[in-house]
Amino acid sequence: MRFTSEQHLEDGVLEREFTLGEIPGTLWTTPGSAPAPLLLMPHNNGLPKADPRLVARGRHAAARGYAVASIDAAGCGERPRSAAAEQARAELRRAMRAGEPVDEIFESFIGPLVENAAPEWRTTLDALLELPEVGGPVGYAGGWTALGIRLAVTEPRIVAAGFFAGGYVPRAQREEARQVTVPLLFLLQWDDEGNPRQRALDLFDAFGSKEKTLHANLGGHLGTPAFEAEDAGRFYDRHLK
Amino acid sequence: MRFTSEQHLEDGVLEREFTLGEIPGTLWTTPGSAPAPLLLMPHNNGLPKADPRLVARGRHAAARGYAVASIDAAGCGERPRSAAAEQARAELRRAMRAGEPVDEIFESFIGPLVENAAPEWRTTLDALLELPEVGGPVGYAGGWTALGIRLAVTEPRIVAAGFFAGGYVPRAQREEARQVTVPLLFLLQWDDEGNPRQRALDLFDAFGSKEKTLHANLGGHLGTPAFEAEDAGRFYDRHLK
Repeated sequence: MRFTSEQHLEDGVLEREFTLGEIPGTLWTTPGSAPAPLLLMPHNNGLPKADPRLVARGRHAAARGYAVASIDAAGCGERPRSAAAEQARAELRRAMRAGEPVDEIFESFIGPLVENAAPEWRTTLDALLELPEVGGPVGYAGGWTALGIRLAVTEPRIVAAGFFAGGYVPRAQREEARQVTVPLLFLLQWDDEGNPRQRALDLFDAFGSKEKTLHANLGGHLGTPAFEAEDAGRFYDRHLK
Repeated sequence: MRFTSEQHLEDGVLEREFTLGEIPGTLWTTPGSAPAPLLLMPHNNGLPKADPRLVARGRHAAARGYAVASIDAAGCGERPRSAAAEQARAELRRAMRAGEPVDEIFESFIGPLVENAAPEWRTTLDALLELPEVGGPVGYAGGWTALGIRLAVTEPRIVAAGFFAGGYVPRAQREEARQVTVPLLFLLQWDDEGNPRQRALDLFDAFGSKEKTLHANLGGHLGTPAFEAEDAGRFYDRHLK
């Protein structure tokens, strides 16, 4: 892991860009404190890690006392996209305009993205936990639910997870959801334009966790109220501090 | 309003029993502070206001800086029950044992209880707001959703409401839900034995409020996690302080 830039922010947070092989990432920490619990903050494939809302979430969580990491995984964010995924995206736009079903198109390119992202996140997790300023335990605090399910099932170092029900979850991960057992906070926008409500409620029902909480708010995909960031912070505090 | 007893509790909360005509009530306040925002804490008809969980909720909210009031409304709690309601309850038990539909039985006695309780709560609200230690604004923090809908629609002094989706809501109040416009926190137990989940989700969908949040937790009717009391407190803080 090689740090390529650093920036001291007003709220005492240190924001550093890093590379780990081909993986570009950002790490937010609060220098001078004891080794901090770690939050993994993956985002879904449509956004780069420099997206202002993602950056704001990372800084907010770091100011609460967490080490927070974000990466652009293979085929995601600013990294090169595969020709197959680009073709699928074009086909998706065409099908949406035509009002045709889109599930099979999503399956064809979200599935491989999850498969490829999971090992890169595990590599990143290994490297992060070797830093003296990063302790444990580890929480998943990502907007990308499909990847979160895969990691929560396959990565025993993750002890709690917050998911956002606003993105396509492939059938394979909907099946895997039953194997998720960590405490869960599941955030849903009640009128999310592109994500059927019933499918999100079915997914919440499917999670195997004994402690799981759904927070649903009125409004569309981008309408999550600001107070949910505070609520999520308290959820992680309960399980990681 | 006549205070009949008072008790100073360890956490600085003053707990007073009162009567207002035939209405028996409890008021929790924190003496010495400025006039406090008021939370109405009605409970559904099956419980007396002295129920330990209700008392704990009242004390908890008072310690957060609220004046909190609870009454046994007409036909509820420890007050005399009508012969018709007693007969309906007996019929309800019989029907439940036999596995027969119970909606019409609920309608026959919950409807009148709501009709009778609403004016008693308004009388209580008038009296409470004359006390120097009680200010405004007013929030509804009750377990009794059906009454809460009626009051939120008919009582403009209520500016925010927290409901618990664990009790029968008559058809009249399910219709009135569309007229509720105050910010809302709706608490649901995902596996509530006696309250169909879909009906609760439909009710959440029906509320006319622009700001409404659903918190759903795994478990049965009595399984609400302790952290939801803190979450509710912050909801009231946002709207009443």
